[in-house]
Amino acid sequence: MSLELRKHFEELIPLTDEEFATLASYFNLRKLKKHQYLIQENEPITNIYFVTKGLLKASYIDTHGKEHIIQFAMENWWISDFQAFYTGVPSVTSIHCLEDVELYAISRNDFEKICLDNHKVEHFFRIKNSLGYVALQKRILSLLTTDARERFEQLSAQYPKLIQRVPKTIIASYLGVSRETLSRIMRKL
Amino acid sequence: MSLELRKHFEELIPLTDEEFATLASYFNLRKLKKHQYLIQENEPITNIYFVTKGLLKASYIDTHGKEHIIQFAMENWWISDFQAFYTGVPSVTSIHCLEDVELYAISRNDFEKICLDNHKVEHFFRIKNSLGYVALQKRILSLLTTDARERFEQLSAQYPKLIQRVPKTIIASYLGVSRETLSRIMRKL
Repeated sequence: MSLELRKHFEELIPLTDEEFATLASYFNLRKLKKHQYLIQENEPITNIYFVTKGLLKASYIDTHGKEHIIQFAMENWWISDFQAFYTGVPSVTSIHCLEDVELYAISRNDFEKICLDNHKVEHFFRIKNSLGYVALQKRILSLLTTDARERFEQLSAQYPKLIQRVPKTIIASYLGVSRETLSRIMRKL
Repeated sequence: MSLELRKHFEELIPLTDEEFATLASYFNLRKLKKHQYLIQENEPITNIYFVTKGLLKASYIDTHGKEHIIQFAMENWWISDFQAFYTGVPSVTSIHCLEDVELYAISRNDFEKICLDNHKVEHFFRIKNSLGYVALQKRILSLLTTDARERFEQLSAQYPKLIQRVPKTIIASYLGVSRETLSRIMRKL
């Protein structure tokens, strides 16, 4: 099973070989090609995914057909339509591969089962969720208080590798500006 | 100890009297008057708070002196500067009582201890964190895709009691519009 998966869990919780074998047995490897969809809009969502290779974007298409980027994911990030996964409503986002992708899927049932069976795993996901919550609160603050240039600088400082891998049109969409505005911002820096 | 606190935990996890007594022993009741601050900017934050009475707002003052509302909290909601609480950086928000307030404080150390000692409590907070994450993702989507009128309608539908209790100037600040724009929106509805 995936070394990356073990390393990821062991950043927060030590696991015996046996515990990791049990945990790993709940995850299924999936491989997708660039341009494939992992999730499409308006589907029931039963899995969350841990990315071990490649890059994806989760986006929402508004009533005017405009695309808004909810999140990116690359190696060692988790991705899904979390609202659909946790609350049972159909997905509102679609998740699209920007590169060839390898990821590990775990179903809602197995996710709840492993959290119930192993307190350490539940602890892992509580901590992950709290850090995710903090990251989203920072993004809200950033959306409320900064302009596109400041948001681009924050994104570049926080995720320099992401900026290099994501096409500029999609970075522009994430920042909520046109491709031309982003080019102007990048020339000035 | 607080019946509200017990009821709140038991919405997700059943607790024996003994378990609740242990849990409750980690919480301390605090009472604040309208206009008092629970948290001020640039402080170390060691507590999270469960509100049993009253209404508070968490806000951020930008470099131009403009106030941005991060969250509200009323009965049965949790509030803190979560970034400061979880990551140890000083607070970036201030939390201010809009009414007389009663709440229960638990420190970071006690919070981690009770999660470690009682798997059910750790489960409770994992679920709470995941629902909080989903709520913030919805707010981001709303900030990216809707105008002030739609945001006001969403807020009214989701939290009708909140709208009645929060002064209109502060609702306007939450929506990112002027007091006059909010009045215009409300007249039209």
